[in-house]
Amino acid sequence: MNIKVLLDESEIPREWYNLAADLPTPMQPPLGPDGKPVSPDMLGKVFPMNIIEQEVSSDRWIKIPEEILGILYKWRPTPLHRAVALEKALGTPARIYYKNESVSPPGSHKPNTAVAQAWYNKQFGIKRITTETGAGQWGSALAFSCALLGLDCKVYMVRISFDQKPFRRLMMETWGAKCVASPSTETNAGRKILEEDPDTPGSLGIAISEAIEAAVTDETGQTRYSLGSVLNHVMLHQTIIGLEVKKQLAKINEKKVDVVIGCAGGGSNFAGLAFPFVADKIVGANIEVIPTEPSSCPTMTRGPYSYDFGDTIGMTPLLPMHTLGHTFVPPPIHAGGLRYHGIAPLISQAVIEGLLSPRAVHQIECYEAAVLFARTEGIIPAPETSHAIAAAIQEAQKAKEEGKEKVILFNFSGHGLMDLTGYEKYFAGKLQDYPLPEELMNKSLAAIKNLPKPKAVKSGRW
Amino acid sequence: MNIKVLLDESEIPREWYNLAADLPTPMQPPLGPDGKPVSPDMLGKVFPMNIIEQEVSSDRWIKIPEEILGILYKWRPTPLHRAVALEKALGTPARIYYKNESVSPPGSHKPNTAVAQAWYNKQFGIKRITTETGAGQWGSALAFSCALLGLDCKVYMVRISFDQKPFRRLMMETWGAKCVASPSTETNAGRKILEEDPDTPGSLGIAISEAIEAAVTDETGQTRYSLGSVLNHVMLHQTIIGLEVKKQLAKINEKKVDVVIGCAGGGSNFAGLAFPFVADKIVGANIEVIPTEPSSCPTMTRGPYSYDFGDTIGMTPLLPMHTLGHTFVPPPIHAGGLRYHGIAPLISQAVIEGLLSPRAVHQIECYEAAVLFARTEGIIPAPETSHAIAAAIQEAQKAKEEGKEKVILFNFSGHGLMDLTGYEKYFAGKLQDYPLPEELMNKSLAAIKNLPKPKAVKSGRW
Repeated sequence: MNIKVLLDESEIPREWYNLAADLPTPMQPPLGPDGKPVSPDMLGKVFPMNIIEQEVSSDRWIKIPEEILGILYKWRPTPLHRAVALEKALGTPARIYYKNESVSPPGSHKPNTAVAQAWYNKQFGIKRITTETGAGQWGSALAFSCALLGLDCKVYMVRISFDQKPFRRLMMETWGAKCVASPSTETNAGRKILEEDPDTPGSLGIAISEAIEAAVTDETGQTRYSLGSVLNHVMLHQTIIGLEVKKQLAKINEKKVDVVIGCAGGGSNFAGLAFPFVADKIVGANIEVIPTEPSSCPTMTRGPYSYDFGDTIGMTPLLPMHTLGHTFVPPPIHAGGLRYHGIAPLISQAVIEGLLSPRAVHQIECYEAAVLFARTEGIIPAPETSHAIAAAIQEAQKAKEEGKEKVILFNFSGHGLMDLTGYEKYFAGKLQDYPLPEELMNKSLAAIKNLPKPKAVKSGRW
Repeated sequence: MNIKVLLDESEIPREWYNLAADLPTPMQPPLGPDGKPVSPDMLGKVFPMNIIEQEVSSDRWIKIPEEILGILYKWRPTPLHRAVALEKALGTPARIYYKNESVSPPGSHKPNTAVAQAWYNKQFGIKRITTETGAGQWGSALAFSCALLGLDCKVYMVRISFDQKPFRRLMMETWGAKCVASPSTETNAGRKILEEDPDTPGSLGIAISEAIEAAVTDETGQTRYSLGSVLNHVMLHQTIIGLEVKKQLAKINEKKVDVVIGCAGGGSNFAGLAFPFVADKIVGANIEVIPTEPSSCPTMTRGPYSYDFGDTIGMTPLLPMHTLGHTFVPPPIHAGGLRYHGIAPLISQAVIEGLLSPRAVHQIECYEAAVLFARTEGIIPAPETSHAIAAAIQEAQKAKEEGKEKVILFNFSGHGLMDLTGYEKYFAGKLQDYPLPEELMNKSLAAIKNLPKPKAVKSGRW
């Protein structure tokens, strides 16, 4: 028999875990354009107040409303698998486990927060949610969630993805969302960009600007904006992943995890799996926790800890985070979800506190890992997920060299069925390991040199 | 809470159910070109003998080997969901349940038999399996299964699909299979067709010929052919679906199912869900069992019961089945898996015995049903699956008109993430309800007029 651990309905976690409550240093607040902390009220036109309360909460445990559990229950608890065939192929003494978040209808972990955000918006009387999407994972998860909750959903999709990835757009439309190419003619931000450059491929930064503008300028007051990663409440909603894993490991009497791994772009799937284990580490457990990022976008391994904008054009509040500078444009790796200049403030601070051991991996090693995984464990990984698999294989090989029976756990954040063109290029020998564009990085870092620096943290590399 | 019924590892069915044991009339044998029954030995170069034994077995229950269960356990038992949101949208007093076969890594029910066939081939010492695929569902399921069992897999993919559906091909390649466009230059059958028509789009019939030729001409004797539907052993392997459902319904104390529905091309997903319920019907249970087919390919509702070839060019033995004639080419509906001229002999005979109530539905009604399902239940259906949903909605509306609390069960055979172009056309208003090409059907029926007729059945429409 394969080893697969399930939980039944009664075992689904009923509270989210908030790492902010346990970090040795309190979280630094987001800052406004004047350099002063942004008050919750100032965000009220962007997000509903119940979500803002979660964003700033320092409660350790936050109850998951029954109605949200009812929807998550469509595909949760997700299975925890032991990668027996992969272990065998590697000849490792390590036991490798993966949490399978690919079983949600949109195919990734993203609906864990999309459902929660849609539900809180609806509770607050909101009728319509706007968002941006790059590759389309997030947009499709929010479209799915809004369909189930009866909300309107409008997605600004980066033009180049809109043109190149019609299937992701079609998923959103099938779930009833409106999806437009960004920049669009529907917002001032979009029109301004199009006037300057009618042929622009768009960017996530522009799409964020349009989605926020569409939310805050709706005169009915019934529209809000939703973000799929980076922010504290998003990390919070994802912790159901790691909390389930703890119950699953207990069920099979697996007492101690040695290594916890997740890929990290904005950071939400990593945080979701890892934060409940980071809590153990804070009180002394010996666990290595590894967020994995692309070598060509090394936010945590190379970026300083600084205040920076969340978007490219500087519309959002300043967030305290590891960043390569908000103007940094990573090379066109296939893991679109990992091409982000910054990373979640909660993860950034955990890095600074020495709780995490970030690691960068190259694209080709990731595809090698993904193909080995598909041919042993049977599920085709998303390009983002392959970064976690590559690190897990590195750790399994290390355990083999050391002759140690380690327990390695990683998050299988999503399947790759909508992203097979990367595999095609890999098989054709046309993929490359993009080097870090050092000059570009230094330029974008220079541009944020004068932004405020976070205070009151143990250490920092700026 | 949503209603979702799971089974744990100990509850997975350990035997397949063989309807052939219970049909009132014994099954008619396949015939050779001479009109005489084909003996098992004659099939020995095509299939391994352990599978041939299953094909001709009349045992009611056949043990599922532990190793097969071990692999199926990666995603089975699959969930049974109650479609509460769909019921609400329809305002029906009916309780609608669907078995979710889309959760397998290739996204459909197909691996239930692909894993079993790969395993039996391996047991028999076979190293390499050949098959054909049209739209790609079957080819990807077999590629997946061969990867997990360490067998080589070669897929002949109909040229037009090979060109138009690169993602299905990429799935197969990611799982390590070799996939070539058919007709290919690798077989006599392929070369002959290419000589006559170098620009042919190919057909399933040609691809079957190539796959069989490649298997039987391998001089090492270590290659066999595999078929994903139609044959008795394929239906057998799929019955795990319905056997699980019976346990799941018992768990929630749902004592009586009134209507059982599955879409049917070759018939395997329908048979898998329905046959265990047909067994109850044979001994008197009052259940309506509805295989659903496209109006433009009405095999069961319009085709006579006759001996006919399984493939287009007449290479296979003659099978007793409802058929539109093996030269019938259905209109290009998006449900590629339902564009087959015949249907499984077991299903055909059950139709003749009056155990099934076949129904034909139009393409646009199916897309309407699929979109309603996606926006209420959250999963995007495959075009084939939408035929089952359309019939389930018809039944739910009938229950509403009659004011009856019926229990309706259907098979959600696969997700539509690899088949979104049909949705695009539907939203753009570019889909049509193809009328049945009567003239073409009459021509292809005339061509089989002189083939043998099955004997010893209760009734028949020829």
